Amino acid sequence: MVKFAGTRDVIELVNRIGMAKMFEELVAEAEADFARWPQFEKVARVASHSRDGVIELMPTSDGETYGLKFVNGHPKNTRDGLRTVTAFGLLADVATGYPTFISEMTITTALRTAATSALAAKHLARKDAKVMALIGLGAQSEFQALAFKAILGIKSLRVFDVDPAATRKFARNMADSGIAITYLPTAEEAVTGADIITTVTADKRNATILSDNMVGAGVHLNGVGGDCPGKTELHRDILLRSKIFTEFTPQTRIEGEIQQLDADHPVTELWEVISGAKPGRDSDRDITLFDSVGFAIEDFSTLRVIRRLVEQHGLGREIDLLPEEGDPKDLYGLIRAGAPNETKLSA
Amino acid sequence: MVKFAGTRDVIELVNRIGMAKMFEELVAEAEADFARWPQFEKVARVASHSRDGVIELMPTSDGETYGLKFVNGHPKNTRDGLRTVTAFGLLADVATGYPTFISEMTITTALRTAATSALAAKHLARKDAKVMALIGLGAQSEFQALAFKAILGIKSLRVFDVDPAATRKFARNMADSGIAITYLPTAEEAVTGADIITTVTADKRNATILSDNMVGAGVHLNGVGGDCPGKTELHRDILLRSKIFTEFTPQTRIEGEIQQLDADHPVTELWEVISGAKPGRDSDRDITLFDSVGFAIEDFSTLRVIRRLVEQHGLGREIDLLPEEGDPKDLYGLIRAGAPNETKLSA
Repeated sequence: MVKFAGTRDVIELVNRIGMAKMFEELVAEAEADFARWPQFEKVARVASHSRDGVIELMPTSDGETYGLKFVNGHPKNTRDGLRTVTAFGLLADVATGYPTFISEMTITTALRTAATSALAAKHLARKDAKVMALIGLGAQSEFQALAFKAILGIKSLRVFDVDPAATRKFARNMADSGIAITYLPTAEEAVTGADIITTVTADKRNATILSDNMVGAGVHLNGVGGDCPGKTELHRDILLRSKIFTEFTPQTRIEGEIQQLDADHPVTELWEVISGAKPGRDSDRDITLFDSVGFAIEDFSTLRVIRRLVEQHGLGREIDLLPEEGDPKDLYGLIRAGAPNETKLSA
Repeated sequence: MVKFAGTRDVIELVNRIGMAKMFEELVAEAEADFARWPQFEKVARVASHSRDGVIELMPTSDGETYGLKFVNGHPKNTRDGLRTVTAFGLLADVATGYPTFISEMTITTALRTAATSALAAKHLARKDAKVMALIGLGAQSEFQALAFKAILGIKSLRVFDVDPAATRKFARNMADSGIAITYLPTAEEAVTGADIITTVTADKRNATILSDNMVGAGVHLNGVGGDCPGKTELHRDILLRSKIFTEFTPQTRIEGEIQQLDADHPVTELWEVISGAKPGRDSDRDITLFDSVGFAIEDFSTLRVIRRLVEQHGLGREIDLLPEEGDPKDLYGLIRAGAPNETKLSA
């Protein structure tokens, strides 16, 4: 039997432990995995492109545990009331190849993306950072706000979105968050005085959410929305003034903000900073940019946290994804024996 | 919600409709998909190798439906009473990227491998083939025997395995199969007089299950067991006398019997025969070889059959792999709303 955690389990889990604790767990696990980054098998996503979107497989392994995320990206889905991104993931045992855990990852990916942003900012932003600007108030926005509150103590947000409905939704969801939120009429006004600027807009094009004059010395940029070829958010001149940090560079060169730069433009991988191999920010006047596109190891870390917490809280269900044990050479015997009784399976 | 078919559902389904009907359904679907082979997206397996085995992803798409199989191969598993190969699969909607169906594929892969063998033999063996030799009586053997009975009317088998326990298991499982089975003490005796020779042994090495003198004119060879680098069953001289048929040639060059041949040795892809583009057997004296290693499109066809039959028979369960619908920009609202009641989910 394989443990399955559905959306119901993940929602129940987060409600039991709270978003702050959830982000603490996710960031701690991701931090430990970034610190041992060279141990992981790293391959570019396996993508199946179609007219309206893409289906991607994101596998990795640390030699003991194998992790896989299945994720789609279909921007037009929202026209039909469907979600742009849905996902699920699995863990398997490398020694036997047996799957051990399957989980929803639509909600979980939102948690992991925000946790990764907060982890990067913890290592790259100025230690005295107090105010974050948040540009783009879509599906990822509340997760970013709450992750930065939990991990960096950010309690002051300056926010902007072109869509009034998204802004209302954000305001409704964050009303009791304990974060002081200032709603600004333009991105330019939102970023004024911010120590950290998070961009998480959704347009699939090369946009200029931030122009060069909007980013002053000492700022940490958390670029989340630019995450596929042809989709960027920052003006190229900002990149040229920034110290740039990536996850898995070969993938970021194709998908991240740095697709605007030469292929040999110097970048530092986040794991090098977290493991202590390389410095992050050199001074309080540096502009640091975390050029986030998402990588399989983050999903691996997240799945391990979800599995552990689901176990601890008695959530999840067993599903018969694998046959019962028996003579390995007698697979047909399973059919001859007939379907096991419902009562032999847990509910 | 996503439909899930577990091992219990697949076992129940096969018991309800019978193995013959199951193979008829699988071969009909696979035949239609082989006939439209150029429409499919074809990539080599995505493999994660480790000391004791491999975990593979096998994706494909016909532009409307996306299919994926997750499958492991761990020969040492049997030492611990575990299965060498386990698998599960999924179908997703290309237009939206949403997964729609998840199924066990440990049992189902055994069905699809035998169905593919029978489909190939239907197009490549002599029309008057009556007797099949079956070398190797492991997990796949009963499936091969029953597929060839259902699709080609083979009712006479000559069988051999080095392992008496495997032979006893085969005899027990096939006692009421309606197939006349002759047990022979050597592979050489088993193949004598056979019109079709199926090799499905498990040793992970370059073995010589069949030597050149054992294969006479007119025979169809169904080479199933040689399916990864360093694992072959047929002597190279047999290959040089045979007309060779493959699934996806770039993969077969690495994994199949033809890894023993030059990289430009002529082969014909099975879909070319099934679609009518190229001839199969030229005469009743040809030796034809189906160099089977398994390809993603076969799993795609099989998953579609299982989904359809599971629906028809009211089997399977809904699982909450995806969140409920709602404002796509309000993912966090799902968490705030709390976990849906158990009663809102089907059992």
